[in-house]
Amino acid sequence: MSVNHHPIGVFDSGVGGLTVFHALREALPHEDFIYLGDTARLPYGTKSKHAVESYTVAAARLLREQHIKFLVVACNTASAHALDALQREVSDLPYCGVIAAGAEAAVAATRNGRIAVLATEGTVRSGVYADVIRSLKTDADVQMLSANLLVALAEEGWCEGAEAEAIVSRYLAQLSAGYDTLVMGCTHFPLLVSVFRKLCPSDVKIVDSASVTAKAVAGLLAARNMLNAQTKPGRDEFKVSDLPERFARVGARFLGRDIADKVALTAFSAAHLEKAANALNSLS
Amino acid sequence: MSVNHHPIGVFDSGVGGLTVFHALREALPHEDFIYLGDTARLPYGTKSKHAVESYTVAAARLLREQHIKFLVVACNTASAHALDALQREVSDLPYCGVIAAGAEAAVAATRNGRIAVLATEGTVRSGVYADVIRSLKTDADVQMLSANLLVALAEEGWCEGAEAEAIVSRYLAQLSAGYDTLVMGCTHFPLLVSVFRKLCPSDVKIVDSASVTAKAVAGLLAARNMLNAQTKPGRDEFKVSDLPERFARVGARFLGRDIADKVALTAFSAAHLEKAANALNSLS
Repeated sequence: MSVNHHPIGVFDSGVGGLTVFHALREALPHEDFIYLGDTARLPYGTKSKHAVESYTVAAARLLREQHIKFLVVACNTASAHALDALQREVSDLPYCGVIAAGAEAAVAATRNGRIAVLATEGTVRSGVYADVIRSLKTDADVQMLSANLLVALAEEGWCEGAEAEAIVSRYLAQLSAGYDTLVMGCTHFPLLVSVFRKLCPSDVKIVDSASVTAKAVAGLLAARNMLNAQTKPGRDEFKVSDLPERFARVGARFLGRDIADKVALTAFSAAHLEKAANALNSLS
Repeated sequence: MSVNHHPIGVFDSGVGGLTVFHALREALPHEDFIYLGDTARLPYGTKSKHAVESYTVAAARLLREQHIKFLVVACNTASAHALDALQREVSDLPYCGVIAAGAEAAVAATRNGRIAVLATEGTVRSGVYADVIRSLKTDADVQMLSANLLVALAEEGWCEGAEAEAIVSRYLAQLSAGYDTLVMGCTHFPLLVSVFRKLCPSDVKIVDSASVTAKAVAGLLAARNMLNAQTKPGRDEFKVSDLPERFARVGARFLGRDIADKVALTAFSAAHLEKAANALNSLS
């Protein structure tokens, strides 16, 4: 039986991946989507590779049980740390991350080859962005800077105004001048794009991975004959591991539409966490 | 056999509880301490009561296995959400939280009975601070405001300067004027005290729960004849569930001394998380 009518899974630590989901929804209007936000353990950006691998593999298994046909890892930190683990542990599930697309967008945008990447501490530590960019453009001059506070700022919804400008300014001041391309290397950061636009020199191109990832996923599914043939608009479902009301509130701001009736607490949730904590305890 | 020579356990979601640990260390120089920071799941302030209960109970069980004689829950969010669960699930372990002490300090400090509490979203949602303050002073006028960003700010180490001032100003502007006492209702916030001092009217008293909690714990142990009789300085041990090097780095800033050789990854760690994630998965 064809899996073409099965949904596409989108995974993120929380709400940040909704920027990628938004682009996917536009690029693939007839697909069904299940979005999973790991709000019980977010943020991933300050956690270790090992922890992020564990969380990502568990999330992928959960989405596989929902019969997704493809997984988009819509979180830069998970993409930086956990794709090898996914290939090893959930090998039957096709997937893609967001870093390849972000790197590709940066290489397409730069004229002088000098690229700055703002990301979480974990993504910076992994070094993956610089590696992928240099694999596409060997002479690229890549600088990476961790900007953890921007995640909290976006989650708080303070995406413009004096506070956001003070924080973004301080991060930008830590970059060496001369770059002509700035990569938003975390899916939360595009929410702050108007502040970046205001504070960056006008000749700096600001790129993120959302639209490039969406295009790549659409291309991949088409090439594999995996697109959904239905002609009606696809369905959206949002699952979270904690606090669905909070996700719906912040998510509405990200998507510009109300999603409250589509958000549900699911396995991977607080109830399961309690069992996991007990299991964990009996193992320790 | 006497348990008096056993260590005191101190639990927090991450590094914030070190402000309480610091006061405990000063008040109880001959006690041994084991500090557990749940850096794999922090922050707790934006998570549900259920999730915070699960994490706190698991942490308490782990510390009990280390033979602690007393547990200090040095996290306001865990104190707000999980003390009932501790009493129910780990009933043989004596403990105290930090909210009673913070409330007591506020009631002792106020002259006009108008008290403002800045805390995490979870602590505010619980309503516990206002309940405890009113139980001590029935006519108290308590306002609570969640200030999630201050946690990220303290974790980033941006505890003074233009960014911290912009953010603290925005939160303070959301409070109704007239309060004469401001409670730092999250153990991270005392790190920003110089900014609060600069931006608050000079007649506003700023209180936190660290020293009052330390005094309460010392009194409790003395009353129960549980103090350690050793005359040499007590030992410190720090256990974390993820990224010990990060904890040591941020923790050194909190404590004003190097702790790198005393920090270790422990059960409740990433390795156990993986097993827990698998256990979780098989349950879902």
